[in-house]
Amino acid sequence: MSASVLFHFAFDPASRAARLALGEAKILFEESAVRPWEPDCPLQKLNPSGMPPVLQTTENGRVLTLCEQSAILGWLDDRSREPFLMPAEPNERGEVRRLVQWFDRRFTDEVDAVLLHERMEKPLLRLGPPEARMLRAGREALKAHLAILEALLAERDHLAGRRLSRADIVAAAHLSVLDYFGEISWAAWPGLKTWYMKLKSRPSFRPLLADRFPGVAPAPHYTDLDF
Amino acid sequence: MSASVLFHFAFDPASRAARLALGEAKILFEESAVRPWEPDCPLQKLNPSGMPPVLQTTENGRVLTLCEQSAILGWLDDRSREPFLMPAEPNERGEVRRLVQWFDRRFTDEVDAVLLHERMEKPLLRLGPPEARMLRAGREALKAHLAILEALLAERDHLAGRRLSRADIVAAAHLSVLDYFGEISWAAWPGLKTWYMKLKSRPSFRPLLADRFPGVAPAPHYTDLDF
Repeated sequence: MSASVLFHFAFDPASRAARLALGEAKILFEESAVRPWEPDCPLQKLNPSGMPPVLQTTENGRVLTLCEQSAILGWLDDRSREPFLMPAEPNERGEVRRLVQWFDRRFTDEVDAVLLHERMEKPLLRLGPPEARMLRAGREALKAHLAILEALLAERDHLAGRRLSRADIVAAAHLSVLDYFGEISWAAWPGLKTWYMKLKSRPSFRPLLADRFPGVAPAPHYTDLDF
Repeated sequence: MSASVLFHFAFDPASRAARLALGEAKILFEESAVRPWEPDCPLQKLNPSGMPPVLQTTENGRVLTLCEQSAILGWLDDRSREPFLMPAEPNERGEVRRLVQWFDRRFTDEVDAVLLHERMEKPLLRLGPPEARMLRAGREALKAHLAILEALLAERDHLAGRRLSRADIVAAAHLSVLDYFGEISWAAWPGLKTWYMKLKSRPSFRPLLADRFPGVAPAPHYTDLDF
């Protein structure tokens, strides 16, 4: 049978969350890099939204097409007895789900949609140079979010509690893209830095550290596990 | 023990999804209506985002605070052997998750953030009269989404497949708010209308039909089960 294929864009946070989660679940998969903004992108036919990530796999001889982060992470739940990367304690489970939703909405709207738009989408779509005013607004929003994460990590080893959970995976996916572009001043956030070093050292993270954005070298510490 | 309390705003689609899901799960709960835009809203202390819905309940003698749609629906999964309102077939499960994410992001950004902002948030926050240009844009976007749903329902009894799923619950939550404000021309979407009539007839829907928005009477067919 054909192997699993993940259609992804390397600097899309949701695509990174899927790669990390599949890596943590020790699922072998091929990566197929797509450019979702191009009209002939294969995702136009696979996913009604046209967006990555999409996982194609086979299960009991049938093709499964799983569109976007929630379907891919949910399938990882379905495959294992216990929900995938979820703590046992009910309040911690709620906290994982709250934080995943926080990144899917608040962080995406307030940080990614501003800062990644200026630094990443504008060069890709040839929309002109970044605007200083928008960069400033995005960086201010990012600081507020990092302060919230730092406060959580002052009380916990991981974002939602004592153990690694999918909240950590989703958070690291978003932060790692911003880190590539040098947008995170780790020295200001010691708790977050310790947490990120642990995440970055996991084997699931290795493929992300090899990603390169056309025309932009990664921040010097991007690939450094001991930054 | 104290009962479960849902802090919600009656015209917030995510709050409606939580009320419908709790109703479908036959969980008795008190409704505590909140006004999330007011500085003394109790959600400011319960949920870091300050947003509804939040469910407070007790489980094995401990207080559980579940913030927002994903944590509340996930908790309903955890309580039952089988995931809550989820089909068994893997592609259908993926489709449920894809559609829930579609409503959480695309529908929210393209329709709710425009049309509900003009019709609902502006009067509540005293931001002035709706703008004709924005109403037009929101209605065009809504039409495109309704056409997609109509096409799905031409092939299926429910949005994600043969059985009622949480995709139907989340979709009906969004559409019911727009329907209150008379934004849905059901005659143009016969498949969707049949589907919505079935949803609306469920006992879980009854509390939503009793909601009233200050100063705006519901569309004449809003409470009519046989419209």
